[in-house]
Amino acid sequence: MKISARNKIPGTITAITPGAVNGTVKVEIAGGTILTSSITEEAIEELGLAPGDAVTVIIKASDLLIGK
Amino acid sequence: MKISARNKIPGTITAITPGAVNGTVKVEIAGGTILTSSITEEAIEELGLAPGDAVTVIIKASDLLIGK
Amino acid sequence: MKISARNKIPGTITAITPGAVNGTVKVEIAGGTILTSSITEEAIEELGLAPGDAVTVIIKASDLLIGK
Amino acid sequence: MKISARNKIPGTITAITPGAVNGTVKVEIAGGTILTSSITEEAIEELGLAPGDAVTVIIKASDLLIGK
Amino acid sequence: MKISARNKIPGTITAITPGAVNGTVKVEIAGGTILTSSITEEAIEELGLAPGDAVTVIIKASDLLIGK
Amino acid sequence: MKISARNKIPGTITAITPGAVNGTVKVEIAGGTILTSSITEEAIEELGLAPGDAVTVIIKASDLLIGK
Repeated sequence: MKISARNKIPGTITAITPGAVNGTVKVEIAGGTILTSSITEEAIEELGLAPGDAVTVIIKASDLLIGK
Repeated sequence: MKISARNKIPGTITAITPGAVNGTVKVEIAGGTILTSSITEEAIEELGLAPGDAVTVIIKASDLLIGK
Repeated sequence: MKISARNKIPGTITAITPGAVNGTVKVEIAGGTILTSSITEEAIEELGLAPGDAVTVIIKASDLLIGK
Repeated sequence: MKISARNKIPGTITAITPGAVNGTVKVEIAGGTILTSSITEEAIEELGLAPGDAVTVIIKASDLLIGK
Repeated sequence: MKISARNKIPGTITAITPGAVNGTVKVEIAGGTILTSSITEEAIEELGLAPGDAVTVIIKASDLLIGK
Repeated sequence: MKISARNKIPGTITAITPGAVNGTVKVEIAGGTILTSSITEEAIEELGLAPGDAVTVIIKASDLLIGK
């Protein structure tokens, strides 16, 4: 399945912080930038996410702000 | 001013596609990935965005999906 | 690839309205409800979306409001 | 009051998972698809949400991705 | 119908900029701040929005960033 | 740094509710309206947010719904 989201950034999970309902997933991308994703615990478990996993960060074009 | 958004990715504008109300801004980041941001034409003009500009892409943690 | 988004609704495209930068895609789901998605023209072209296509509408859990 | 959001899906709450700040609300819609909404605990309490409630899931057009 | 969104700001429409698919609606709120909403043309027409209208700006809690 | 977000509302923090991963920040704006922002605990700590702080609430134009 192809997805309409315009932004797909490859990276590696470096840390996961669990919570009751949502958890945060840290992903290191090229250049050493660390991204932070807040997703449901249910998603973290269903995808079996763990540090070291190669993942793709997916973001819709309307969610990107520009700072200059 | 510091901003609460957890994701700040440095990059360079490679292209801008104008529209009536919204335009798209393409930003190349480390590793050669091209990001696409859909923002208002008003913002593009107010910030004076143009190809070659060094910018920061800013995204709230709750807007990042993970694919694995 | 599995995606962390919690909401995946199967449906059929009934109409597409093109724009300069963004277009809208209408998708009929079970029960006859018509959903409206605003995505980039670039995505509409890349996925080759057309009326009659079977698609999946994908939405992050943090983007659903509840009315009662 | 009419609301600009283009997507309004009727359904029935099947489960609520409480958290410290946010909770998740599961809503079954036509066709048996279960949607997951992550909203504040404050909203869950103010609306008095409970399993069995008939509700409307509301989503802005710019938050719907398409997969094909 | 009550809605789960935590943010409801009363204001008055000062301007509308139409586009092919999306338009922008400017709303003046208390203190003289002008807000900008990007919604579908379809919603602008369905609600019959026009300058001078008293409206409520509605925003989900997960969409507010804080700058300090 | 200037940011593309079209909505910047000045206000004062009145309360913070901490959670494991996300917390809520209440901000009073002109006219006495109280806004609610759901952001990461990490952001609350990094910005050192506390009741009484003068802050700016920042919201992207595509995240504002209109009710009439």
